Amino acid sequence: MHAQTHDLLIRNVLLGGRRRDVAIAGNRFACIADRVPGDASRVIDGTSFAIVPPYYNGHTHAAMTLLRGYGDDRPLDVWLRKYIWPAEACLTPRMIYRGTRLAIVEMLHSGTVFFNDMYWEQAETVRAVEELGIRAAIGVVLLNVLGEQRIREAQARFQEWGGATHANGRVQFALAPHAIYTVDEALFRWCARMQDRTGCLVHTHLCETAREVLDCREAHGVTPVELLERCGLLNGRTVAAHAVHLTPAERALLAARQTVLVHNPCSNSKLAVGCFDLTAAWQAGCRVALGTDGCASSNDLDMGYAMRFAALTAKAAQGRPDVCPAERVYACATREGARACGVDGGEIAEGHLADALLVRLDSPRLQPIRHLESHLVHAADSACIDTVICDGRVVMQGRRVPGEERIVSEAAEAAEELYAAVADRAASGANVHR
Amino acid sequence: MHAQTHDLLIRNVLLGGRRRDVAIAGNRFACIADRVPGDASRVIDGTSFAIVPPYYNGHTHAAMTLLRGYGDDRPLDVWLRKYIWPAEACLTPRMIYRGTRLAIVEMLHSGTVFFNDMYWEQAETVRAVEELGIRAAIGVVLLNVLGEQRIREAQARFQEWGGATHANGRVQFALAPHAIYTVDEALFRWCARMQDRTGCLVHTHLCETAREVLDCREAHGVTPVELLERCGLLNGRTVAAHAVHLTPAERALLAARQTVLVHNPCSNSKLAVGCFDLTAAWQAGCRVALGTDGCASSNDLDMGYAMRFAALTAKAAQGRPDVCPAERVYACATREGARACGVDGGEIAEGHLADALLVRLDSPRLQPIRHLESHLVHAADSACIDTVICDGRVVMQGRRVPGEERIVSEAAEAAEELYAAVADRAASGANVHR
Repeated sequence: MHAQTHDLLIRNVLLGGRRRDVAIAGNRFACIADRVPGDASRVIDGTSFAIVPPYYNGHTHAAMTLLRGYGDDRPLDVWLRKYIWPAEACLTPRMIYRGTRLAIVEMLHSGTVFFNDMYWEQAETVRAVEELGIRAAIGVVLLNVLGEQRIREAQARFQEWGGATHANGRVQFALAPHAIYTVDEALFRWCARMQDRTGCLVHTHLCETAREVLDCREAHGVTPVELLERCGLLNGRTVAAHAVHLTPAERALLAARQTVLVHNPCSNSKLAVGCFDLTAAWQAGCRVALGTDGCASSNDLDMGYAMRFAALTAKAAQGRPDVCPAERVYACATREGARACGVDGGEIAEGHLADALLVRLDSPRLQPIRHLESHLVHAADSACIDTVICDGRVVMQGRRVPGEERIVSEAAEAAEELYAAVADRAASGANVHR
Repeated sequence: MHAQTHDLLIRNVLLGGRRRDVAIAGNRFACIADRVPGDASRVIDGTSFAIVPPYYNGHTHAAMTLLRGYGDDRPLDVWLRKYIWPAEACLTPRMIYRGTRLAIVEMLHSGTVFFNDMYWEQAETVRAVEELGIRAAIGVVLLNVLGEQRIREAQARFQEWGGATHANGRVQFALAPHAIYTVDEALFRWCARMQDRTGCLVHTHLCETAREVLDCREAHGVTPVELLERCGLLNGRTVAAHAVHLTPAERALLAARQTVLVHNPCSNSKLAVGCFDLTAAWQAGCRVALGTDGCASSNDLDMGYAMRFAALTAKAAQGRPDVCPAERVYACATREGARACGVDGGEIAEGHLADALLVRLDSPRLQPIRHLESHLVHAADSACIDTVICDGRVVMQGRRVPGEERIVSEAAEAAEELYAAVADRAASGANVHR
């Protein structure tokens, strides 16, 4: 008997318009050829599928699935102060764990294998990620309002966890100073020093609203971009979510520094904070990834939708159907999004991390299949995705994530507990809506 | 033995936050109660589902599924002249039949039970609609470029078919004068006379581009809206697709006449023709339905996506998250869309036509289920829809339309034939792209 040559072999799958065999060894693509010789521990017949790169979500708050649809359609400050913040005050670690697992199931169904997360109780997020086989950059959240004691704890947590390997390298720890209006310069500078020392991602909100820019000028005499530059945080390992309100000079600076801008088109529109100018960012040479933001504002975690919405709104904004072609926005959600967060994935190519989707060639909305890349941006939905491979492992097959029924029902339970706690809090006289 | 009281009975299904039994007799909801007594020819256990209204697509060209993704991301005139028109010149009746069946499968999967269609070879569309159990208003297309002979044939076809009942009343015939730049006043006036006589829908494109309005002023000395008014076509049975470029006075006139405006948010953005001002249309009191347009420009037929895109772009355009609330845009896609096209559906209520969706309560992206209506607009996709009921009949169950594998493969074949014909035409020297 021969030893197994590969761990996973997908036979006769459509790749770039041709039938190929795709072999995976460990967590990387080992061999892609018309016919891969040898055997494998597991073989998938790819005849019914195309193999395509999966999606990398550049900005989210995963556990906020529990707040999906809560306080919709309210003015921004009412939504935040009367709905989101009071509800978040009722979240327990178990709710966050359950909400994050729900988020991961939703992400896998819609083809996402990585998320750049910023949320509380990071140990719960790690647990959920380890169990379900997805990748994540998990940000240790820093805000001055936490107070010195909790900031020191968070810093210690980062220093302890940041150096270790988690989940076979699928989890990286990031620093997540929340935003320039919640984090002071000393704390940003500490992040910059840690980033210098460890090479970690720094994940922050930047220029999400016009108000943020005005207030920053008033408080600091500089714009938010200039403030981050002054703190030493504009570099290729910093991921700035939103970046809606930028001047041309700021775009040029961000491009020169190779800072990653994460475009969250659905959240920006739903909260009506302004429109990220994708065309201008590309023209300036900025690195752009795509994100969904959290479910409280997005209201889902579907990167397919984010691609389509980014493309359509860019065309509408420019009044030109020829801007933002499908292949460009597709690259943002796949290989450029992966690279932006330091993940060597997003391409079906030998040597790269073995992350992939098998999409059903018989999906009605993928016909005619000859324009597949366009369809993945403009017509596909989660029903087209059969199988998700992350880090060389099959994490969803036949549109089913193992254990998903229980994950969904436990998240539903957690949501019931949460809204009961919110109601109790309201009954006790705190100013919250149910 | 007792006679069967009802034809279809859905037991213990979630409706408006309560568990109910929903009984259908013939093609109408007969009884909705906590417990419906008696028996039924067919019983569905609704425990895992919520029952909600389905969607009514106000404007499409169904058979254009075969052109999905073809010539994407080109300037508008290049897209039309070098891709779409030459390809359409190669379409055969069989391709149109197969493309329409593919469209219907896609529509059923995404919860649509009615489409207002404007395309060639209407006999093929009727056949597809009759077979698959969906509803449609099928427009007999009129353009002056057809020439007198073919116009007379089309007029005769309308006069023959318009008076008959098709598919148990699921099919109505409409008149579809294409647009003010392709149809002269005499032909519009003929449509107005036929509409007066028969009460039929008149379905036309209106004010889709700024150019159309400019050219109309130059050619006729009036705007497109004024031209239709002059021809006697502004009334509650006229459905105007797009209506992007309107003045406040025109909105007031269209509201007074109760003319239906169909907002096609995805197509408008993809072709960058301008943004329909949904907020202004509602404020003026206009009737608004939602549509997808054809797959060549939309690029799918998913009304869920159209709802979400309409809501998000309205919020972004106004810079206010509190405009275009979920329930308002949901009404446009359901009961208002149905009424707009003269269909007595879109509500789960006794006496109404029995059109409904059963959505899966265990769908990850419908959690927490308490905000279901918001989720149907902002988070659901076709994977959430299990069962579609149209005109009292189950036309999709378990996410499967009977015969869909064959429908998809025959449509794929038709697309291959089409693109081969396009290539032949190009090789023969005609100026077309492949």
